[in-house]
Amino acid sequence: MKAAIFQGKGAIVTGERPDPTIKNPTDAVVRVVLACVCGSDLWSYRGESAYPVGNPIGHEFLGVVEDVGESVQTIARGDLVIAPFFYSDGTCPHCRAGITSACVAGGIWGINDVDGGQGEAVRVPLADGTLVKVPGSGHSDEMLASFLTLSDVMGTGHHAAVSAGVKEGDTVAVVGDGAVGLCAIIAAKRLGAERIIALSRNPARQKLAQAFGATDILTERGNEANEAVLKLTDNVGVDAALECVGTNEAMQTALAIARPGSIVGYVGIPHGVEIPVPRIFFRNIGLHGGPAPARAYLPELLDDVLEGRIHPGRVFDFTTDLDGIAEAYAAMDERRAIKSLVKVGTV
Amino acid sequence: MKAAIFQGKGAIVTGERPDPTIKNPTDAVVRVVLACVCGSDLWSYRGESAYPVGNPIGHEFLGVVEDVGESVQTIARGDLVIAPFFYSDGTCPHCRAGITSACVAGGIWGINDVDGGQGEAVRVPLADGTLVKVPGSGHSDEMLASFLTLSDVMGTGHHAAVSAGVKEGDTVAVVGDGAVGLCAIIAAKRLGAERIIALSRNPARQKLAQAFGATDILTERGNEANEAVLKLTDNVGVDAALECVGTNEAMQTALAIARPGSIVGYVGIPHGVEIPVPRIFFRNIGLHGGPAPARAYLPELLDDVLEGRIHPGRVFDFTTDLDGIAEAYAAMDERRAIKSLVKVGTV
Repeated sequence: MKAAIFQGKGAIVTGERPDPTIKNPTDAVVRVVLACVCGSDLWSYRGESAYPVGNPIGHEFLGVVEDVGESVQTIARGDLVIAPFFYSDGTCPHCRAGITSACVAGGIWGINDVDGGQGEAVRVPLADGTLVKVPGSGHSDEMLASFLTLSDVMGTGHHAAVSAGVKEGDTVAVVGDGAVGLCAIIAAKRLGAERIIALSRNPARQKLAQAFGATDILTERGNEANEAVLKLTDNVGVDAALECVGTNEAMQTALAIARPGSIVGYVGIPHGVEIPVPRIFFRNIGLHGGPAPARAYLPELLDDVLEGRIHPGRVFDFTTDLDGIAEAYAAMDERRAIKSLVKVGTV
Repeated sequence: MKAAIFQGKGAIVTGERPDPTIKNPTDAVVRVVLACVCGSDLWSYRGESAYPVGNPIGHEFLGVVEDVGESVQTIARGDLVIAPFFYSDGTCPHCRAGITSACVAGGIWGINDVDGGQGEAVRVPLADGTLVKVPGSGHSDEMLASFLTLSDVMGTGHHAAVSAGVKEGDTVAVVGDGAVGLCAIIAAKRLGAERIIALSRNPARQKLAQAFGATDILTERGNEANEAVLKLTDNVGVDAALECVGTNEAMQTALAIARPGSIVGYVGIPHGVEIPVPRIFFRNIGLHGGPAPARAYLPELLDDVLEGRIHPGRVFDFTTDLDGIAEAYAAMDERRAIKSLVKVGTV
C-alpha cells in the first residue's frame, strides 16, 4: 500500500509499505478515507523533534473498518471510525480516569511497528478502546472533515480549555492562531466563555477566529501583546490563557496575561519552554496541559459535530492526496496553509 | 512597644518600636495576644531570602482591637480578631475572585512602614478587608492557638489541597512534614481524601501526621520515595501531590508521584525549583499554587475550628514570649520545634 514516509528533515515522501493485517485478536484494520498533517508532524519535519528516519508518519485519520480481530466487540467491518492520535485500551487506570493519552498499553501511530495515519490503511491495536464509530451514513465532505479534527486538533484545543478550567462567563485569551489555537477558540466558546481574545496577525486566521467565536483580535506580540491584553481586561488579566504553540515566547505571553489564581492550559509540544517559577508562584498562576486525551473527549465532541453546533473542519484550507503529501507539509511549514487535508479514499 | 526586629542572618532580637496609631481612616490598631514564627520567616533568618535589616518581622497574629479609623465598619474596639498574613481591601477584582493574596492595595506585614506581627501591637491597614472577628469569648488556649494558624499555616496547607483540586475519595501525598505539610494533611482529609500518604522521617511529626489523618507514612526520600509511593498506588501515582517545602528535591518528588492528569499543589516558597517542562507535559501533570489567599479561606476554616472539627493549633510544640523570640527562631531552624508560638498578651 501507499503511505507517507519520513526520510529526514524536510523530506516526506510517498512510499510503499506492506498491507496491514490483523496481528493480535484486539486489532482492527482500517482503510483510510481522510488523513491530515499536524503541527506536531511539523516539529519532526523541521528537525526540531527526533523522529525515526524511514518510519511511516501521521497520526490523524478516519476510515472504514476492513477487518477485525476475533476479540474485537464494539467495532465491525464496514463501520466508519475515527482514530484518536494515541491508541489506548480504555480499561487501564489512566483510561478510566479519562487520561487515555497516558494509557499504559497505548502508543502513537507510526512508531514501534505500528502504521502511520498518512497511508492507505492502518492496523489499529486495541481497536475497542481506540476507535469511535460514527453513526449514520452519507455524511457531507464538510462533516467528514470535522470528524477528522476529533482525531487530534479539536480534541487538543478542547484540552487546552479544559486544562485551564474555562467556565461560563470567562474571559479567555488564546495564544497561537494555528489550527489548534483556532479549535481552542471553538472549545472556549463551547464551554461558555463570554469574551475570547485571539492573538493573530494573519487576516485569514483572524477571520476564522472570529467565525469560531473570538470577540477580540490582537495583533501585538511579546510585551506589547501582554500590555494589550491587560488593557482590554482593566489590568486584571484573563480568567484562562490557552497556550497553543509550544514556544517559550508563547508561554511567557500566556503566563503574563493570566490573572492571579488562574491556570494556563498548554497543549503545544514544548520546545525550549522555561517556567519562571518564583514569578508564577507569587502571582498564583498555574500550568496544566499535555497530550490531549482525544479518545476520552471524542464522544461529546462528536455529538456537537453531528448536531452542527461546531464546525472544526473549517481549519482545513489546503487539500491534496497521498501523492501530494510533500506539498501538504510544505504548505503548512511555510504558513501558506492552516492545516492540510489528505484525501486517501472514499467512504 | 516591644517588637521582634530582623538584624541580619541568624539575628532576630527584641527591640523597641513606636506604639502604632491610626494613620488612615481604614486602619485599625490591634494589641497582639498571640504571634508565631513561619517557615518563610526562616528563609529570611537563614539568609536565603532577602529581608530588610532593621525591619520588624512576623506576619501571623491575633489580638484585640484597640482603636479603629473613622471609616472602619465591620471591626470595633474590643473585638478578638485574626489577621491573615497579607492585608487586603476585600473589594478589588482579585479579592472578589478569592485571591486576596493578590490584592492590588494589599501587602505583607513588616514591610513598607507596616508593623510586623511579632510585636506588642500592629497598625492594620484596610481593617475591614483584612481582619476577621472571632465570635464568642472565653476561648481556651488550645482554641486560640488553632485560631492563630488561620493567619497563615492552616490556610496555606488548605491552599495546597485546593490548588491540587483534592476531592472526595482521593489518594493524596503530602511532601514535607513541617507545620504547613501537617496542615495540608488536615486540609486533604477535610476535603474528603480517603488515603493520605505523608512523607516524614521524624517520629513526633509522624505521630501528628497520623493524628491529623495520614493513613500511610513513608520515610524514604528522593527516588526511593517516588518508588515507594508508586508501589503503594499500584504504579498509578496519587490523585494529588501537595508540595509543602519549597525546595527542588521536594518538587521533583511531588511531580514524580503525581498521576497523569493531576495537579501538584505547591505552597512552599520556591528556592531553586526547576520545572522539567517536557517531562510534566508528556505526563499531563499540572502545577498550581502560590501565597495562600488566607483571608478568603478564613471564615470557612474558622467555622471548623470553632466546631472542633479541626485542631491545627496542635502544630505548635514550642512556646515562648517576645523576649524569647531568638530562641523561637532557633528552635525551628534546628528542627527542635515544628512551630513556635509566641505569647505576647492576654485576651
